[in-house]
Amino acid sequence: MKKVFIAGTGLTRVGRQFGKGLRELFAEAALKAIEASNNVNPQAVVVGNMLASALQEQDNLGSLLADYVGLRGRPAFKVEAACGSGGAAVYAGYSLVASGLADVVLVVGVEKMTDHATDRVTRALAQAADAEYELFYGASFAGLNALVMRYYMDKHGVSREDMAEWPVLMHENAKENPYAQLRFKVTVEQVINSPLIADPIRLLDSSPIGDGAAALILASEDVVRKLTDTPVEVAGVGMVTDSVDVASRDELDFFPSVKEATDTALRMAKVGLNMIDLVELHDAFSIMGFLSLESMGFAGRGESVRMLKEGAFREGDRPVVNPSGGLKARGHPVGATGVYQVVEVAMQLRGEFPGVKVSGAELGIAQNVGGLASSATVFVLRR
Amino acid sequence: MKKVFIAGTGLTRVGRQFGKGLRELFAEAALKAIEASNNVNPQAVVVGNMLASALQEQDNLGSLLADYVGLRGRPAFKVEAACGSGGAAVYAGYSLVASGLADVVLVVGVEKMTDHATDRVTRALAQAADAEYELFYGASFAGLNALVMRYYMDKHGVSREDMAEWPVLMHENAKENPYAQLRFKVTVEQVINSPLIADPIRLLDSSPIGDGAAALILASEDVVRKLTDTPVEVAGVGMVTDSVDVASRDELDFFPSVKEATDTALRMAKVGLNMIDLVELHDAFSIMGFLSLESMGFAGRGESVRMLKEGAFREGDRPVVNPSGGLKARGHPVGATGVYQVVEVAMQLRGEFPGVKVSGAELGIAQNVGGLASSATVFVLRR
Repeated sequence: MKKVFIAGTGLTRVGRQFGKGLRELFAEAALKAIEASNNVNPQAVVVGNMLASALQEQDNLGSLLADYVGLRGRPAFKVEAACGSGGAAVYAGYSLVASGLADVVLVVGVEKMTDHATDRVTRALAQAADAEYELFYGASFAGLNALVMRYYMDKHGVSREDMAEWPVLMHENAKENPYAQLRFKVTVEQVINSPLIADPIRLLDSSPIGDGAAALILASEDVVRKLTDTPVEVAGVGMVTDSVDVASRDELDFFPSVKEATDTALRMAKVGLNMIDLVELHDAFSIMGFLSLESMGFAGRGESVRMLKEGAFREGDRPVVNPSGGLKARGHPVGATGVYQVVEVAMQLRGEFPGVKVSGAELGIAQNVGGLASSATVFVLRR
Repeated sequence: MKKVFIAGTGLTRVGRQFGKGLRELFAEAALKAIEASNNVNPQAVVVGNMLASALQEQDNLGSLLADYVGLRGRPAFKVEAACGSGGAAVYAGYSLVASGLADVVLVVGVEKMTDHATDRVTRALAQAADAEYELFYGASFAGLNALVMRYYMDKHGVSREDMAEWPVLMHENAKENPYAQLRFKVTVEQVINSPLIADPIRLLDSSPIGDGAAALILASEDVVRKLTDTPVEVAGVGMVTDSVDVASRDELDFFPSVKEATDTALRMAKVGLNMIDLVELHDAFSIMGFLSLESMGFAGRGESVRMLKEGAFREGDRPVVNPSGGLKARGHPVGATGVYQVVEVAMQLRGEFPGVKVSGAELGIAQNVGGLASSATVFVLRR
């Protein structure tokens, strides 16, 4: 298996971008990544996207978007794994380079969510759940997360106030990130008094709806030095699935997919969890942030809320968690999110992330999930 | 790059299967392929599908369908490239094995099209076209094919009657194929008098709407002998894209994506076009069948209609084209079609295809396109 590296990267701001459609968002991120890779001509294109079929009535994004930036005449396809589409696209792109089918692959996650009313977007997002066993009975994605949050609070005796520490930290981090959607501070008081979405989840527990695109160039060890002086190695990859419907899980408050994907990626990179300097993880709702931490092994079960309150997971501590602001405050353009995370970790390792910095970072993890961790991808990146 | 082989395969009948949803179709094909591979436990699952998001409101098919057949806890994702989704899924699966990320991968194409009225299905299929530059102006997929067919007939002086020879041969072949949707003969007279769909395309020029799933196990050279005594080598692969909107092509009546994907796959397999014993190719409409033949190089430009009329492309000739009956008469469950083709060619090379047989075949090609050849995948299989 060939070693795989990240050369250039590109991001758009996350948020409402009324003047930009799928094409323009894609192009902005993709062309930045290409330019940052010595203007390389990628041999293949992988697109991560969840909602274009439901919201833009547009399939065939591989051909469509590759063509829009002048990249006809090579392999291009879309990968979908719900909110984990971005991570799955990076995984598929990794495999194209590792196999030798291509030496240089452009991976782009893109999502356009703000063209439609919230109820239609909520319905489209619910397609990540099981249409026959969950959606049919009226479950929304927020509703399923609320169920898990209530169970977790009850089981571990965690207060509503303490869980609000998650959005508080995420908003603090996002304030420094020029690509983030929600660049303002919030207080515990504001979180627990914000509008109720699905009890006990409040508006400020929830990631916002936003547009965005993130791009990276993956390159083989044979060519990466021609593209950049500061390659970042994709040292370990893991992808693991679980059931889609939450009812058929053994446990509500632990994600085996996240644990196994993390273990797989760490084993491949030959590093331990205690060596990780930063993590960009999947916190579509506050509860998902805590459960991601615990499932990855950065906190014992039921311990992460207390640890956060006591000052862990932020600048100065190791690992720093979501210096970007996370899905909660950087934003969550669903099919793009997994690519944002990989790009942000790579930028940190190069010391070029423009927000909260993790100084001297050598190892980072990007963790993205689809649905309620019905799939998880984990990438270990090394400077 | 590791060599990749096909172990077991599985097909469902194509057609209206009112009693079966996405899950049941997937399971029928997948379990057959697993059973035919010495009951192997696949390490990863790739799903090819186009329409589930638009028609079943179901994303996240990788996790959902893998779980339904007991395959949690491993990589699984969906690949979409419109009508070429099946071929793209085989391509992505190939890369997982070739890279060494997995030794055994289950690839399944699945589509459920008959739950909805034809107008809704037609609209969903049009998502393969460009939503902003084609679909918005009322172009349907049949309409775009009609435009190309009229141009081709005019340019090459081909008669409507002669183009009807395509469905006549396809229906003859499908009659022998127990998995085919349209198992009855038609005459030129019947084709040209069948209801008009989009002038000059008639009902009997068009592939039918149907449900179906096709599955195969891809395995590395290291393990395939444990799974089967009759492995089929995936000796060459090619995937090439073009623009989605037809208006921005240089030519209407030739598909560079198909030509380049064919050339790439043949070069990789180190074989010539004249060594190919059979081809399963993409004939969503009669015109697509002829243009696929000419773009691959099996006929000169404007020559394929005459060659067919003079007896080429059928039993006894080389290559035999679409012994399955093709999209036209085997049927076209869109996201599954590319996998059907690979399975059918593999079955022919093993001498186990239950329909029209290509005796002594050693080399075959499966060719699948998305949209109007906005992407093309070509696989060269060797006994």
